[in-house]
Amino acid sequence: MKRKLVTFGEILMRLSCEDHLRFSQAHTFNVVYGGSEANVAISASNFGMSVDFVSVVPHTDFGNASLAELKISKVGTDNIVFRGKRLGLYFLEKGAVNRGSKVIYDRANSSFAEVKSEWFDWEDILKNCNQFHWSGITPAISKAAAEVCLEAVETAEKMGISISADLNYRGNLWQYDVIPEEIMTNLVSKSNVLLAGGYACKQFFGIQTQNSSNLELFEELTQKFPKLEKIAITNRIEMNASHHKWSANLYNGKTILNSTEYDIFPIVDRVGTGDSFMGALLYGLQHYEDQQALDFATAASCIKHSIYGDINRVSKEEVVKLMEGDISGRISR
Amino acid sequence: MKRKLVTFGEILMRLSCEDHLRFSQAHTFNVVYGGSEANVAISASNFGMSVDFVSVVPHTDFGNASLAELKISKVGTDNIVFRGKRLGLYFLEKGAVNRGSKVIYDRANSSFAEVKSEWFDWEDILKNCNQFHWSGITPAISKAAAEVCLEAVETAEKMGISISADLNYRGNLWQYDVIPEEIMTNLVSKSNVLLAGGYACKQFFGIQTQNSSNLELFEELTQKFPKLEKIAITNRIEMNASHHKWSANLYNGKTILNSTEYDIFPIVDRVGTGDSFMGALLYGLQHYEDQQALDFATAASCIKHSIYGDINRVSKEEVVKLMEGDISGRISR
Amino acid sequence: MKRKLVTFGEILMRLSCEDHLRFSQAHTFNVVYGGSEANVAISASNFGMSVDFVSVVPHTDFGNASLAELKISKVGTDNIVFRGKRLGLYFLEKGAVNRGSKVIYDRANSSFAEVKSEWFDWEDILKNCNQFHWSGITPAISKAAAEVCLEAVETAEKMGISISADLNYRGNLWQYDVIPEEIMTNLVSKSNVLLAGGYACKQFFGIQTQNSSNLELFEELTQKFPKLEKIAITNRIEMNASHHKWSANLYNGKTILNSTEYDIFPIVDRVGTGDSFMGALLYGLQHYEDQQALDFATAASCIKHSIYGDINRVSKEEVVKLMEGDISGRISR
Amino acid sequence: MKRKLVTFGEILMRLSCEDHLRFSQAHTFNVVYGGSEANVAISASNFGMSVDFVSVVPHTDFGNASLAELKISKVGTDNIVFRGKRLGLYFLEKGAVNRGSKVIYDRANSSFAEVKSEWFDWEDILKNCNQFHWSGITPAISKAAAEVCLEAVETAEKMGISISADLNYRGNLWQYDVIPEEIMTNLVSKSNVLLAGGYACKQFFGIQTQNSSNLELFEELTQKFPKLEKIAITNRIEMNASHHKWSANLYNGKTILNSTEYDIFPIVDRVGTGDSFMGALLYGLQHYEDQQALDFATAASCIKHSIYGDINRVSKEEVVKLMEGDISGRISR
Amino acid sequence: MKRKLVTFGEILMRLSCEDHLRFSQAHTFNVVYGGSEANVAISASNFGMSVDFVSVVPHTDFGNASLAELKISKVGTDNIVFRGKRLGLYFLEKGAVNRGSKVIYDRANSSFAEVKSEWFDWEDILKNCNQFHWSGITPAISKAAAEVCLEAVETAEKMGISISADLNYRGNLWQYDVIPEEIMTNLVSKSNVLLAGGYACKQFFGIQTQNSSNLELFEELTQKFPKLEKIAITNRIEMNASHHKWSANLYNGKTILNSTEYDIFPIVDRVGTGDSFMGALLYGLQHYEDQQALDFATAASCIKHSIYGDINRVSKEEVVKLMEGDISGRISR
Amino acid sequence: MKRKLVTFGEILMRLSCEDHLRFSQAHTFNVVYGGSEANVAISASNFGMSVDFVSVVPHTDFGNASLAELKISKVGTDNIVFRGKRLGLYFLEKGAVNRGSKVIYDRANSSFAEVKSEWFDWEDILKNCNQFHWSGITPAISKAAAEVCLEAVETAEKMGISISADLNYRGNLWQYDVIPEEIMTNLVSKSNVLLAGGYACKQFFGIQTQNSSNLELFEELTQKFPKLEKIAITNRIEMNASHHKWSANLYNGKTILNSTEYDIFPIVDRVGTGDSFMGALLYGLQHYEDQQALDFATAASCIKHSIYGDINRVSKEEVVKLMEGDISGRISR
Ligand SMILES: [Ca+2]
Ligand SMILES: [Ca+2]
Ligand SMILES: [Ca+2]
Ligand SMILES: [Ca+2]
Ligand SMILES: [Ca+2]
Ligand SMILES: [Ca+2]
Ligand SMILES: [Ca+2]
Ligand SMILES: [Ca+2]
Ligand SMILES: [Ca+2]
Ligand SMILES: [Ca+2]
Ligand SMILES: [Ca+2]
Ligand SMILES: [Ca+2]
Ligand code: NI
Ligand code: NI
Ligand code: NI
Ligand code: NI
Ligand code: NI
Ligand code: NI
Ligand code: NI
Ligand code: NI
Ligand code: NI
Ligand code: NI
Ligand code: NI
Ligand code: NI
Ligand code: NI
Ligand code: NI
Ligand code: NI
Ligand code: NI
Ligand code: NI
Ligand code: NI
Repeated sequence: MKRKLVTFGEILMRLSCEDHLRFSQAHTFNVVYGGSEANVAISASNFGMSVDFVSVVPHTDFGNASLAELKISKVGTDNIVFRGKRLGLYFLEKGAVNRGSKVIYDRANSSFAEVKSEWFDWEDILKNCNQFHWSGITPAISKAAAEVCLEAVETAEKMGISISADLNYRGNLWQYDVIPEEIMTNLVSKSNVLLAGGYACKQFFGIQTQNSSNLELFEELTQKFPKLEKIAITNRIEMNASHHKWSANLYNGKTILNSTEYDIFPIVDRVGTGDSFMGALLYGLQHYEDQQALDFATAASCIKHSIYGDINRVSKEEVVKLMEGDISGRISR
Repeated sequence: MKRKLVTFGEILMRLSCEDHLRFSQAHTFNVVYGGSEANVAISASNFGMSVDFVSVVPHTDFGNASLAELKISKVGTDNIVFRGKRLGLYFLEKGAVNRGSKVIYDRANSSFAEVKSEWFDWEDILKNCNQFHWSGITPAISKAAAEVCLEAVETAEKMGISISADLNYRGNLWQYDVIPEEIMTNLVSKSNVLLAGGYACKQFFGIQTQNSSNLELFEELTQKFPKLEKIAITNRIEMNASHHKWSANLYNGKTILNSTEYDIFPIVDRVGTGDSFMGALLYGLQHYEDQQALDFATAASCIKHSIYGDINRVSKEEVVKLMEGDISGRISR
Repeated sequence: MKRKLVTFGEILMRLSCEDHLRFSQAHTFNVVYGGSEANVAISASNFGMSVDFVSVVPHTDFGNASLAELKISKVGTDNIVFRGKRLGLYFLEKGAVNRGSKVIYDRANSSFAEVKSEWFDWEDILKNCNQFHWSGITPAISKAAAEVCLEAVETAEKMGISISADLNYRGNLWQYDVIPEEIMTNLVSKSNVLLAGGYACKQFFGIQTQNSSNLELFEELTQKFPKLEKIAITNRIEMNASHHKWSANLYNGKTILNSTEYDIFPIVDRVGTGDSFMGALLYGLQHYEDQQALDFATAASCIKHSIYGDINRVSKEEVVKLMEGDISGRISR
Repeated sequence: MKRKLVTFGEILMRLSCEDHLRFSQAHTFNVVYGGSEANVAISASNFGMSVDFVSVVPHTDFGNASLAELKISKVGTDNIVFRGKRLGLYFLEKGAVNRGSKVIYDRANSSFAEVKSEWFDWEDILKNCNQFHWSGITPAISKAAAEVCLEAVETAEKMGISISADLNYRGNLWQYDVIPEEIMTNLVSKSNVLLAGGYACKQFFGIQTQNSSNLELFEELTQKFPKLEKIAITNRIEMNASHHKWSANLYNGKTILNSTEYDIFPIVDRVGTGDSFMGALLYGLQHYEDQQALDFATAASCIKHSIYGDINRVSKEEVVKLMEGDISGRISR
Repeated sequence: MKRKLVTFGEILMRLSCEDHLRFSQAHTFNVVYGGSEANVAISASNFGMSVDFVSVVPHTDFGNASLAELKISKVGTDNIVFRGKRLGLYFLEKGAVNRGSKVIYDRANSSFAEVKSEWFDWEDILKNCNQFHWSGITPAISKAAAEVCLEAVETAEKMGISISADLNYRGNLWQYDVIPEEIMTNLVSKSNVLLAGGYACKQFFGIQTQNSSNLELFEELTQKFPKLEKIAITNRIEMNASHHKWSANLYNGKTILNSTEYDIFPIVDRVGTGDSFMGALLYGLQHYEDQQALDFATAASCIKHSIYGDINRVSKEEVVKLMEGDISGRISR
Repeated sequence: MKRKLVTFGEILMRLSCEDHLRFSQAHTFNVVYGGSEANVAISASNFGMSVDFVSVVPHTDFGNASLAELKISKVGTDNIVFRGKRLGLYFLEKGAVNRGSKVIYDRANSSFAEVKSEWFDWEDILKNCNQFHWSGITPAISKAAAEVCLEAVETAEKMGISISADLNYRGNLWQYDVIPEEIMTNLVSKSNVLLAGGYACKQFFGIQTQNSSNLELFEELTQKFPKLEKIAITNRIEMNASHHKWSANLYNGKTILNSTEYDIFPIVDRVGTGDSFMGALLYGLQHYEDQQALDFATAASCIKHSIYGDINRVSKEEVVKLMEGDISGRISR
């Protein structure tokens, strides 16, 4: 039986200031590699799923280095293409209290942005796959990336593979001549599992909701995208840059399920937390009932806030312990 | 038209332990340079004012290094005198929770402490100046420093320049044969803008107030120093070393204005926050109505608590965003 | 008059990840040395007591290095034996928020675990001693360690020396063929001062209590161990890994005394906080009335949570300031 | 056709002092993982060979972490057994000039030392293998390790697989009741490729040679071990701890081949240089004539002296460039 | 009298691995900013010249940060344009012994590469200038950069300003549709002072010389470019990556002058050493006779090899001391 | 029998730049504590002598911290006085190749400089002493320091204690109204063992010698100071800042003894190497014949060049190994 998750997207080098230094104070940067779809791949693989990550990286020391964590986590990298000129970068200044974190993207003209359709034989890539995952960052990168993403989604659809997506709205991408709504509508209409978000839905689809619950939004999405079987939303209440409240909802077309709300303070690293939710949700949906899947994903992503880097380095056991209610953070010795 | 702020005071090398290490654990010190009046100068310059800093530093690598941030921020350094033997130092152990931070000053016999009157031609220095700023640290350093400070203030007064002051009471300075009250009374009586403080007013002028509002204090100060046009006070409630509440008041001779109260937790670096208030207030008083000036200064100094070092590395846009009520510390990407 | 505290136990090298990194992310470890009974010795010595630490370390650079902090704090090390093959180690991953800290012990076959009875002449070692201290970690290490611990306790008892103990239950030690209850009952029954704990009492002695106060537990212990004159318990409420509430009780056979409850957030390093309580309690019981002794110990151990490493680097003055109610963590300058 | 290299041995955590600090000065340790046979595996894999590493590590975060570099370098880890209690450690103090480096092993009772025969099905493990590699460290670790090593060698011999060995004499291992000569004679007599050394041959086999060339030694070894087809020796002349001369010889039963002698100064990290020679030699013997194989191995291991850690992070192109005579270390930009 | 040096070129962020780590080992990068023409500007300014640097940087935190060292060194930055999207980057892996350093450029599509002619009013920019400096990197970056460079050179020529150039051949730039020889011939033909190099002359102009002295090359250049008054060449003999010999020649159309040859070992940072020679030569030619100018430039650039970063942080006094023959590196205390 | 070495002098905090950074580049300083006479004390104690260090330090965290290494090395600190206001400091920039290291002293007005005669009861301090050691730094610090040093020397002389001295000429001390020659002549005339130096002898006593051997200097010193029994000189040939040759001579009134000459490259830390020679010489003179004593001291101080900090962290065994001719710096494992 086919049991592989395949994710497709860009992996970047992240350069972050030490502690809470501002960019203007930085005499060193800490280096990790990550990207939404790679983060999802690693999370799911760490929980025990069979996963492949598909991407384009340059044939340089940095292209190679970007794959290290995937390999350590047993994510398949055989369909990654080594082409193009540069690895995309992003710089991260970590805020505190009332000073927000700051990301400077430097990913234009990256290997991935200049992806070519002929580099991928999607029928071959997806042959053992039962779940294909993409996110809204990919079509936002470049026209070429959007096209290849669509080819992947269409092939998956044709092959009867379940398709999942994270809307991942990024306002300062989408820098090419395009109507995002068209592209995203086309892509989401073929998808079965969605990680949505109120702001993203408004930006992409013009959906505006009135009341504070997510139910109305779920219903509008279901109406607009009838193939969607599961829709999730994470709720982040930003008390300030160091202190968030975190919960999530899952909608299965009928009922809206609620998770615990976690109070997260002080945050160690919030980048990649949405991805950690997504990776855990995909695992959960294959191994649990919906409520447990939601609880597993919310707990996993809660813990990610305490972990440096883009990647959720957490075991299934640790997630289950929190999911079952032990928030004590007790020392294990 | 004359539009320059001139500040006068000592700049020091600051040596702080990493993270929350105690002095006895330190195998490295982090190094920055700062001092109350230099911090004010840099803050004001960063918001767009034309600023000059006047001081004395030794003709050594450390004297030079102490000026780097001033130069980076376009603060004029042409009237800084290179004389004397040593740059003043201070050591900082950063506390946490119920353990307070600890400062060890090592600034006796510094170049600035041994300043000489003939090194400065104040009429020339102040010729394009419309605001002169000093703080209570300067006369506390040495008899010589107090004398030169008085000469500067008297020249400014004679030239019709607005004079601002930060009381900055430091109990373990004032180590020479002097009555602080006399000196400070003389200096403040010539000043027009004051950053005061309840404890400083009691120590310097014997002013004791009854009720918890600052109004009574403002009224006593106005009576005692009729030249004062604006008086500000910052209110710091120390929940513990990591967690403060922070607000401020401004008095214009008639009304007492109140700022938002910010809850700041966890604090990254509280040194220089008063100076960041002062620098922003001087900017605000020239560009805004009083209430906005107060709000700008309170927001600017709130953000400073999240920034390592003595200096407030923050843009006008960032201050305005907080001042307008966005406390979310949302990530910008 | 004899006025020396002697403590006996193992000292370890501690290797901890930087900041909140996970073990899998560590490219460096921070190194300190510590162990429950050494920590108690240093704490008590720092407050001014005359103290000796008795142990076994290997005759290597690490055996030597483990004694540095003892020597710096004037703890006597003349009765430490240099034998055996390795210094015990423990690795520490510091958690945050809902992710608990993680300790990996690597102390089997250490020099201390292979201690031999003939290496110690307890009558000689204890000749100027008026307080002997041991903890439940020592008999848990190995059969040999348990035997030597018993010899020390029996000699102290015979010599009329007051004996103190910290139950210090560690579930993953006790890895040899033994009934912990027997050994511990024998050792505690000879002791006069005890730092207990609800979970430890249940594990060691099967004592289960109903109500939430510690009174019932104190009474059961007093009944079971009639020699006990003072019993203390620390109460740690773990909101999460970064945030604890901390208080303590002291029982003198009649009354139960309560301390202030401290809210500790964010915690810098919680390892060794129990030891810092014990060291301060032993000092307090010799210099204060019971209530003050309890308050001193609680305040001392509250501060320890803000200090990196196993050791409580704090002065009597700092403890007294907090004990007298100043929780402001005000900067001292 | 079978084309896999399989190596068998222990992998350790290495903890080294920063720069040239002594153990007594270390407040941090740098962490990498390595071991002779793992180093050989990674080197060979980096040059493009198909390689498997067989070992035992504990089922802990450190057992997992020790495999990361193998996975990054595509070395197969499927036959690594997760059993036992601890990962072996070694500490490294890096000397300079006339102060030698210092290694403290802490590897007794490691998971590997307590290896069990039944954990390995060697016929299965070696089924696609055409080269099996072991080193003299493995039988030195414990009786159990020696037995399993012998089983592997015997199976390889039976299956007609070429066997290579590195004598790797370590005086302070061999800490169990055994005659090293017997074990090593048995193992080497079944091997076809050997990395020898004058001192090791004297210690293991009592072979003493007169003249300074290695020819006599090669002849004695060939006589004693008739199965040996290729014998190599590296010649290290230690001017001091920072400065070595480095060359090698290869003997094919008839001729003795000489390499270039490299002058290496200042050395960055000499640990693992023998292993980098071995890995490159195994690659070279499969892809080149003997002289080129020797030159490739000598150049590869020369470069290793400039690379931090146990592992030779070098590409085939970089080795070939040096092997062809470009010692300039010219900047590539 | 006009006495200003103006240099024009790109400034980059440099990200270098710690110590001698390979890119694949880097978990942090050290950050500095530099670029050939900025380095020349800072060097000359540090010796006391009046200098302006002209460039294009993005209006970001990194654009600002790149100017800090210029401001600290009093280099004028008023004609730097804040436009475009990104600051160019380069990554540096520092080799050792027989492993060369490695530079990965990531500067395509930088703000500077997309420079526009209309952003600069060269007559205004050069109005107080008596020396204009450019290097062969600038026309290599992009067609636009080459055009603006030519405009600057033509304006300088028209205004009777002396023009200096560093050939600075970089093989992996010049990535646009162009014949480098044409552009460079045009630019150099208008220049008066040249820092040449044998390899660059061959690549740019096809000049091949026979004998090992530089005289023939100087004569060919003088013939080809009759405006050249002074030509210098630095001679770097690369013993290996850590050890160079360094000397230079200066030709004034008649005589060839020789410098001392310095033995430099171990090199701390060789990047920017050519620039440090050029900056010191421009200073020397204005203050000394030719032989002294050459000696000053060679000594200054010798010292640069011991200084981290692109910039030569050295005083005139330090250079003169070495230039006068004190190679002892004696401690000053 | 009396068998204690007592040394008297100032201990300082040393703040050094990381690696080879210049002061202007330093964002952190590494911190150690040292001073000539403390360094001698620790060296001698590490070899097994009974040693006391006498000094004045402030009653601050830094005064305490400065004693840590003394306590770790079992040097007695009971006669150290806690008085005065500040610990002396020095800053160290570590040069390389042709750039010399740079020391900036900041020790004026230190606790030690303001020493008072009545703080020391020298008869009591020296009661178990058989060797008193001072250096030329102490009388150079201040008039008060010179007076107390003389009192100590006179008391030692009176008590028949052997007196040793290191001339330690520091040109930028001696900043008070004094004729150094007078003071030094008086002090040296009472001393029995001297570590001299050609430059120091010229500066202090006007002794100029012709030939390159040290014999003439030894003879002049012996004539001038008839009490001198042993005179040693270390010979440092500075090839450059990274590379020295190092040897020494010892004169016993009749013969001049020569040591091996060591080639030291690359130097890790040269500060305190003279002190490491002195400490080892005092040990050697009590345990060996003169030639061996010289060889021991030269070898010990050769190794010190490879050790970070002021202190020679080396064992007797390590020194003997080098002294017996093993310069290989072979790895010990
Ligand atoms: Ca950090
Ligand atoms: Ca991401
Ligand atoms: Ca830090
Ligand atoms: Ca300040
Ligand atoms: Ca840290
Ligand atoms: Ca402990
Ligand atoms: Ca380092
Ligand atoms: Ca190895
Ligand atoms: Ca470094
Ligand atoms: Ca450059
Ligand atoms: Ca370093
Ligand atoms: Ca010294
Ligand atoms: Ni933080
Ligand atoms: Ni922090
Ligand atoms: Ni800086
Ligand atoms: Ni903190
Ligand atoms: Ni922290
Ligand atoms: Ni330490
Ligand atoms: Ni933290
Ligand atoms: Ni932190
Ligand atoms: Ni890593
Ligand atoms: Ni080194
Ligand atoms: Ni180094
Ligand atoms: Ni230390
Ligand atoms: Ni190096
Ligand atoms: Ni190095
Ligand atoms: Ni790594
Ligand atoms: Ni170095
Ligand atoms: Ni270095
Ligand atoms: Ni900097």
